[in-house]
Amino acid sequence: MAQLADWVAVDWGTSNLRVWGLTLDGEVTFHVASPKGMGKLSASEFGPVLIDILSQNGIDAGARNEVLICGMAGARQGWLEAPYLDAPADLRGLSQGSVAPQIAGSGLSVSILPGVCQKRSGEENVMRGEETQLLGLASLISDFSGVVCMPGTHSKWALLERHKLSSFTTAMTGELHEVLGSHSILRHSLSGNPEGPERDAGFSAGLDIGLEAPELLSSHLFGVRAAALISGKEPAWCAGYLSGLLIGSEVGARSSHINAEVTIPLIGSPKLCALYAEAIHRLGGSSRIIDSAEAVLAGLLAARAH
Amino acid sequence: MAQLADWVAVDWGTSNLRVWGLTLDGEVTFHVASPKGMGKLSASEFGPVLIDILSQNGIDAGARNEVLICGMAGARQGWLEAPYLDAPADLRGLSQGSVAPQIAGSGLSVSILPGVCQKRSGEENVMRGEETQLLGLASLISDFSGVVCMPGTHSKWALLERHKLSSFTTAMTGELHEVLGSHSILRHSLSGNPEGPERDAGFSAGLDIGLEAPELLSSHLFGVRAAALISGKEPAWCAGYLSGLLIGSEVGARSSHINAEVTIPLIGSPKLCALYAEAIHRLGGSSRIIDSAEAVLAGLLAARAH
Repeated sequence: MAQLADWVAVDWGTSNLRVWGLTLDGEVTFHVASPKGMGKLSASEFGPVLIDILSQNGIDAGARNEVLICGMAGARQGWLEAPYLDAPADLRGLSQGSVAPQIAGSGLSVSILPGVCQKRSGEENVMRGEETQLLGLASLISDFSGVVCMPGTHSKWALLERHKLSSFTTAMTGELHEVLGSHSILRHSLSGNPEGPERDAGFSAGLDIGLEAPELLSSHLFGVRAAALISGKEPAWCAGYLSGLLIGSEVGARSSHINAEVTIPLIGSPKLCALYAEAIHRLGGSSRIIDSAEAVLAGLLAARAH
Repeated sequence: MAQLADWVAVDWGTSNLRVWGLTLDGEVTFHVASPKGMGKLSASEFGPVLIDILSQNGIDAGARNEVLICGMAGARQGWLEAPYLDAPADLRGLSQGSVAPQIAGSGLSVSILPGVCQKRSGEENVMRGEETQLLGLASLISDFSGVVCMPGTHSKWALLERHKLSSFTTAMTGELHEVLGSHSILRHSLSGNPEGPERDAGFSAGLDIGLEAPELLSSHLFGVRAAALISGKEPAWCAGYLSGLLIGSEVGARSSHINAEVTIPLIGSPKLCALYAEAIHRLGGSSRIIDSAEAVLAGLLAARAH
């Protein structure tokens, strides 16, 4: 039986993980996703989960494959803590910062890449996983320098100079949408069908307001409720409006980075990135969407090569 | 037995209610508070709760007292809906907009004052209870015109010209603090003793950052988590920092209203108002704290008089 993979790349996030089998030439031999993210596992469960996924794809526990992992598996509450690199950081050095968890009775050689932190007082920040996507971006777009936006639960905005991550910020946009929609008074205005046809109109209205006055976010949020009460806006409109306000405020606060001269890479889920692309477009900028799966795989390939 | 009260004033909010017995001269004969706020009652329970409180204070259900109520008892989900007045609104007209719920077998004559709404598309807003506090302010500070700040779960910023409420905005500051502290990733950094001695230092640091860049609120929020992870900040510091960020962002977004020439009335709980006073002070403004209980009682007296 032929070798199913020479090595294995893993993006192990909080909610999910993605696993690729690869040849030495970088050809993908298999690709699977699993919901067994870091948030659902204790430290002792990572090894068995990994072995289980590999065996389902024809690689048994005794095989002497390399496994290269990025993401939350390296967090303190993950499999084995991989201490952060400090920004500014040369991302070609990610592999040197990796840690190697042991799996008893297994021939696998596992490495977990570090995240990156920022230590300056008042600007403290952390990322785990996005640094590998950024390394991937540097290999997908050679000589890229500029601002990169990575939409998500905790969106990252990074300043990248080729392989150097200079600095970054994190906006809690996705989590705000989730928490406000589920636990605040706004939930009363969102219950029902949040995917109805009025969602786009709500998004567009919220986006304009968020972009125009990002500093008034905590006030505009109450406008979701008031629009439902006073103007009878439907749940789908309100859900879109909330999304537009949050994304508009996030992008609007960074308008100084956006102009006709630059194209901002957007790394994330293509559906979410399209909403950010619209926000950037309304400020006169342009963007280019890169699927986060493509970016992280490119990053794991680059990390192994350096 | 002497008349215990000629009439009764009630501030019936979402979480609590406050009841005052009053003479025709405005002298308070009793004052009680109860946790039986609108949020805990169905429409049929308001009457019995009121009768129970009055009887405990010597007024039986057969008495022919007037009862004047403001606040959430007049909401759609309250006792009886009192339709909103539209802003701009002359607050001396509140009584004319009141509704009269009936209590079978009672001699009480009950009126519930309306709230005020704002209907312009994109600026929809509502208040119930604060309009009565604003009418109270107009009677406590005669000839007052200017911006009024009313800190709380949903803070209101109103533009008042003597008795005319011109316009207002609502910031979800208090609810954001509650929801983020209980349901977001920030809860991990706040668990423990949020009232420790480092709280003040955290508040001060967060306030400066919020005032300086209110547009970056959704990014600064993640800084609470990062400061705990990277700089080992304690839960008390983080709780203060979160509070400072939220209040700083709210006040900082309204810096155009704040200067050395005006004194901004702050109506609310004195402890919370003191935090807003510090924010206004750091922007070079001054403020004057008025206890919301004093303001709402003055407003109920004024509403009855007009």
